Amino acid sequence: MRILSRLISSSSSIGYHFLPRLSSRHPLLAQLSTLIHPLKSPSPPMDTTEDSLRKALAEKQSAVEGQGNAVRALKAAKVAKAEIDAAIGTLNALKLEKSAIEQQLQAAVSGNGPDSSVNREAFRQAVVNTLERRLFYIPSFKIYRGVAGLYDYGPPGCAVKSNVLAFWRQHFVLEESMLEVDCPCVTPEVVLKASGHVDKFTDLMVKDGETGTCYRADHLLKDFCNEKLQKDLSITAEKAAELKHVLAVLDDLSTEELGAKIKEYGIVAPDTKNPLSDPYPFNLMFQTSIGPSGLLPGYMRPETAQGIFVNFKDLYYYNGNKLPFAAAQIGQAFRNEISPRQGLLRVREFTLAEIEHFVDPEDKSHPKYPEVADLEFLMFPRDKQMSGQSAKRIRLGEAVSKGIVNNETLGYFIGRVYLFLTCLGIDKERLRFRQHLANEMAHYAADCWDAEIECSYGWIECVGIADRSAYDLRAHSEKSGVPLVAHEKFSEPIEVEKLVIAPVKRELGLAFKGNQKMVVEALEAMNEKEAMEMKASLETKGEVEFYVCTLEKNVCIKKNMVTISKEKKKEYQRVFTPSVIEPSFGIGRIIYCLFEHSFYMRPSKAGDEQLNVFRFPPVVAPIKCTVFPLVQNQQYEEVAKVISRSLTAAGISHKIDITGTSIGKRYARTDELGVPFAITVDSTSSVTIRERDSKDQIRVNVEEAASVVKSVTDGQRTWDDVWSKFPHHSSGSTED
Amino acid sequence: MRILSRLISSSSSIGYHFLPRLSSRHPLLAQLSTLIHPLKSPSPPMDTTEDSLRKALAEKQSAVEGQGNAVRALKAAKVAKAEIDAAIGTLNALKLEKSAIEQQLQAAVSGNGPDSSVNREAFRQAVVNTLERRLFYIPSFKIYRGVAGLYDYGPPGCAVKSNVLAFWRQHFVLEESMLEVDCPCVTPEVVLKASGHVDKFTDLMVKDGETGTCYRADHLLKDFCNEKLQKDLSITAEKAAELKHVLAVLDDLSTEELGAKIKEYGIVAPDTKNPLSDPYPFNLMFQTSIGPSGLLPGYMRPETAQGIFVNFKDLYYYNGNKLPFAAAQIGQAFRNEISPRQGLLRVREFTLAEIEHFVDPEDKSHPKYPEVADLEFLMFPRDKQMSGQSAKRIRLGEAVSKGIVNNETLGYFIGRVYLFLTCLGIDKERLRFRQHLANEMAHYAADCWDAEIECSYGWIECVGIADRSAYDLRAHSEKSGVPLVAHEKFSEPIEVEKLVIAPVKRELGLAFKGNQKMVVEALEAMNEKEAMEMKASLETKGEVEFYVCTLEKNVCIKKNMVTISKEKKKEYQRVFTPSVIEPSFGIGRIIYCLFEHSFYMRPSKAGDEQLNVFRFPPVVAPIKCTVFPLVQNQQYEEVAKVISRSLTAAGISHKIDITGTSIGKRYARTDELGVPFAITVDSTSSVTIRERDSKDQIRVNVEEAASVVKSVTDGQRTWDDVWSKFPHHSSGSTED
Repeated sequence: MRILSRLISSSSSIGYHFLPRLSSRHPLLAQLSTLIHPLKSPSPPMDTTEDSLRKALAEKQSAVEGQGNAVRALKAAKVAKAEIDAAIGTLNALKLEKSAIEQQLQAAVSGNGPDSSVNREAFRQAVVNTLERRLFYIPSFKIYRGVAGLYDYGPPGCAVKSNVLAFWRQHFVLEESMLEVDCPCVTPEVVLKASGHVDKFTDLMVKDGETGTCYRADHLLKDFCNEKLQKDLSITAEKAAELKHVLAVLDDLSTEELGAKIKEYGIVAPDTKNPLSDPYPFNLMFQTSIGPSGLLPGYMRPETAQGIFVNFKDLYYYNGNKLPFAAAQIGQAFRNEISPRQGLLRVREFTLAEIEHFVDPEDKSHPKYPEVADLEFLMFPRDKQMSGQSAKRIRLGEAVSKGIVNNETLGYFIGRVYLFLTCLGIDKERLRFRQHLANEMAHYAADCWDAEIECSYGWIECVGIADRSAYDLRAHSEKSGVPLVAHEKFSEPIEVEKLVIAPVKRELGLAFKGNQKMVVEALEAMNEKEAMEMKASLETKGEVEFYVCTLEKNVCIKKNMVTISKEKKKEYQRVFTPSVIEPSFGIGRIIYCLFEHSFYMRPSKAGDEQLNVFRFPPVVAPIKCTVFPLVQNQQYEEVAKVISRSLTAAGISHKIDITGTSIGKRYARTDELGVPFAITVDSTSSVTIRERDSKDQIRVNVEEAASVVKSVTDGQRTWDDVWSKFPHHSSGSTED
Repeated sequence: MRILSRLISSSSSIGYHFLPRLSSRHPLLAQLSTLIHPLKSPSPPMDTTEDSLRKALAEKQSAVEGQGNAVRALKAAKVAKAEIDAAIGTLNALKLEKSAIEQQLQAAVSGNGPDSSVNREAFRQAVVNTLERRLFYIPSFKIYRGVAGLYDYGPPGCAVKSNVLAFWRQHFVLEESMLEVDCPCVTPEVVLKASGHVDKFTDLMVKDGETGTCYRADHLLKDFCNEKLQKDLSITAEKAAELKHVLAVLDDLSTEELGAKIKEYGIVAPDTKNPLSDPYPFNLMFQTSIGPSGLLPGYMRPETAQGIFVNFKDLYYYNGNKLPFAAAQIGQAFRNEISPRQGLLRVREFTLAEIEHFVDPEDKSHPKYPEVADLEFLMFPRDKQMSGQSAKRIRLGEAVSKGIVNNETLGYFIGRVYLFLTCLGIDKERLRFRQHLANEMAHYAADCWDAEIECSYGWIECVGIADRSAYDLRAHSEKSGVPLVAHEKFSEPIEVEKLVIAPVKRELGLAFKGNQKMVVEALEAMNEKEAMEMKASLETKGEVEFYVCTLEKNVCIKKNMVTISKEKKKEYQRVFTPSVIEPSFGIGRIIYCLFEHSFYMRPSKAGDEQLNVFRFPPVVAPIKCTVFPLVQNQQYEEVAKVISRSLTAAGISHKIDITGTSIGKRYARTDELGVPFAITVDSTSSVTIRERDSKDQIRVNVEEAASVVKSVTDGQRTWDDVWSKFPHHSSGSTED
């Protein structure tokens, strides 16, 4: 895949953490929404309806052309008008039939069901309009016409975000006693060189030959193919199959292949129709310079994980030199996207929350695993994807015991992520855990699952949960020279036999002069078998032919040039590089999906308009409660202020609305912000509390109001609990 | 001042928000610690003790030299040995006296009291060692030898930070219903051009002529002067006065003056002794490029405030088009310091929490002001600084009513900041509010106070509270062309008379050809008085001489060239640019000062060592509670785990320690992390709870343990409350 390939060169793969990207669906699922999702390899059979329609259309087109020729021939032959008219009649009938097939084909390629792209687009527009109008978010620097890919969270969005992060801390950091750290965004080059980002964190780009405007090469090719497939009904079934195949393999194309396709299809700059440059890689990190000298290059971090890895040694010490332990970090990350699209899903600056759980590679069990083993949810293992099946409800414990999920710790985090997302209000039916295919994973990764959430853009990767083995710690160990390892003391020392190869440098120097170093290195690099064979040969023959690959030739090694022996040593501890299991959360993506999953419309009481509601659970809701006097009246306002003060003291975010607007309008306003409870002051002794989704109301004493709201927003009680305890209030008088 | 002058050109001042900088003390206070704080202008009289010692030393030096000459003359004259010996005796006595004066002078310049720089340095080392050893913070990227000015918060530091931020949200955002926003760090140039940062956010830098190493010019000059004053006792009183004067005016020196001083004193690169370049300004923003084209320059924001200003229009609308309201933002800010020093106080990336309270410039009252008016604390008004007095305890209400603090809203925030800092655990006696001197403030600012906290580095500016008038909104209005204004509807329309000047362009064009535009502009720019005089002249004489400043000459204006009249108009609203009052918090600086104020040492029970304690209040403490089984024993461990689970459920961060270490050592370990409470399991039915600072212990049932700890950490009860309620436990058996 293209996005993944940012970090994968053609020959080897390196550091891949969470990449906030649009996930591509599996080929066979993807048929349902090819407009949004390119098909993935292996290339699937073409959808049979679409296929046969394209064929029928081509045949009908031939028939129309044939009949047109016939009509022209009849006219040229000046046959009787009646005969010509009859032929024209046939032609018109054929054209009508062709038009009918075109309509069917159009419907087949663009979808027209309730889940069609048109409907999804309309739904998204309704959500986004509400989000922008109520300042959940704002395009950044709007008065200066904004910057693509940068968004502000306005007041309610910012509150949702800090609620999500607070819950994340409670659910992960506190629950697992994780070591949370907070590292700078500015990162020196050496760190990101070690992680591989400096060399490999790229997307392919093409430039408008005249204006210099930049485009993502794969986006242009994808848009071209999709456009052709959707809009050009005249293409043959074969051509359609070819375009679909291109979409399927898009992310696997090399720079040269991508360039060749762009040339072949004659793709030009969309804005100017100018010719395009060949594709070339563009590094997605924002570059800067640390300090005034200009000699210390730095980048804005593309992820938070590296800050944890470089601190491993200290954190391991802090944890009493014991494994397993997890470190966590919440913070900003930056990716200088070539041309950001898809609103809040692909942005240039975003908040990540990452966990690095360090574990002994030989023991990936987890003590709290049994607590999640019985969870059952949609999982989409590799083999189901390869065989064209869809995601299935699987019990997590079964997935782990059958080896579908690589190990208990990975399984434990999958379960915890499921609980986290569903507690926030993500719809269980539109959440699945998709396993990476073999070609999606870095070579060192043991297993990797993405929590994907379905929204109007398709299935979106929102959390990546990867067992990255020892890759990251090893990379930083090598680059820094500081061993990032763990120790396991043996209860009793173990005796081990160790191979010792001791080249005699003086003799080798005399024999090989300038090549001495290469010969020494080659000798030292022998494995046990090779070394013992050489030892035997030297002992029997006194010399041996030895191939030195750096010299690309054989040399003659004599007995006095090297001693080979085995020594017994006592070892008191095992020294190893821990494996890391990394759940990595794209907070902005989770929040956007939450917005879509929480949004619905319902008719106003008068039935004359549709009202917007966000059904946020209290833990997420930006404001927990509103306080209204039913009518403008000083006594009621005083009561409202008293309740407001007790809510503040209880730490409940709320809003007081003393405008004279009708109570129905005031409810509608707060429903649109997702406020779960509204306290309406309609007397000086008692007030009503209304729940947003049911619109049910209870009556409580003024003194109790704040504590009742606190208990339901803190999760100590449910609305059902209070509904059963307090007198009900008919909404008749107040709702409108 | 240098730091402030980052934003102040010699002719005009522009946008100055919070600048995390070492505040300079007032001259007369500064005498107490000239080693750390340069004196400020106006230059003070020299400290009389030091002055007279220098004079005495110079006299004694002359006497020594004179006597030395005398001895040599006697020797040359070969007089009697006894006479020479007597002269040498006198010389030695003089040398001894000189040495005594040197010692006194050394003590006078370097201080030797309990608050001496030596003692402060030692105290700081003790704090910093503990902070680094317990991972409160870690130099970032340590395994790669770090980067100056970048620090990570390790686990306890990160927890303190998120506690401080959570309390900030509760104390300011929730309490005042502020509109919190969250804007990106990456900022396009146009925004920071409007704010003035692109042109003026600079420090003066010099380069090593050979190696290219960069230094802050003022730092080198300051170090030179301080070094001379402290170490070179031979300088004259006059020279000492000159050096002190340089320190006093250091921040006001122009680029040229600074360069001249560096030349005059022969200051060279400290590391190589190479000559230095002339000083030149270096912009402190990290620069980057947004998008792939390289055509959109951007910077990492140097403060969060601009994100709020550019959103003013939307936020005003969100607030129902009503003033006053406040917006707030917590986030990272970046300053590419030339050569960061002073550990956590001057860093290249830091967290700011900023409030922009927008208010009608004609009404700066605040409804909640009476709630803080009776607070009394150390204030340091401008006149006290100028007349050489020290900070005084003043009742806030008095400061506002006497006009010392410009207005109620500013006063309200000063009071709230005081409550915030002292609730966190900042020592009231080492917190003062210092008013900016006239030359420190930007020309547009109405008033400005810094909350300064005293720590081992001196008095540190941690919060700036400024009334910035309408400056920022006007700057962005002008640059963006979007009016950032508020409206006040009049209850009844008001009739106003407006001057209308209508140049007749055709006539003016005929008369003045290419100069027509300048004449038109000059006519339109007339004020009411000028216009009415011209009208009168034209009516009586038919023409008038008129000076056009852009043409630098008089022209003749005839009656047919302009019509001047007054029209009556009805106005329905007042349109104005709101003033902004900005409290801006340097979170990292507050936390560092909090570390110093919370740190103390006490002897271990055996009296053989000093133990470190952080006396964090529960709201700040990184971990609220530890749970220990008294001895290693499965039953006790089970109880400990049960309590741990209930603490997690209650959202109380805690640590369980089941190592076999002695209970005394375990207490000491957690005291050093500032954990306020420790639950020790010494039976299966009841446990003890120990308070950190008193070491007092109570006994509670196992089931109650979590809820008792929760009540004291949430602030529902004090330790005194629970101390009076539960049975006490003698610490004899457990403390060691």
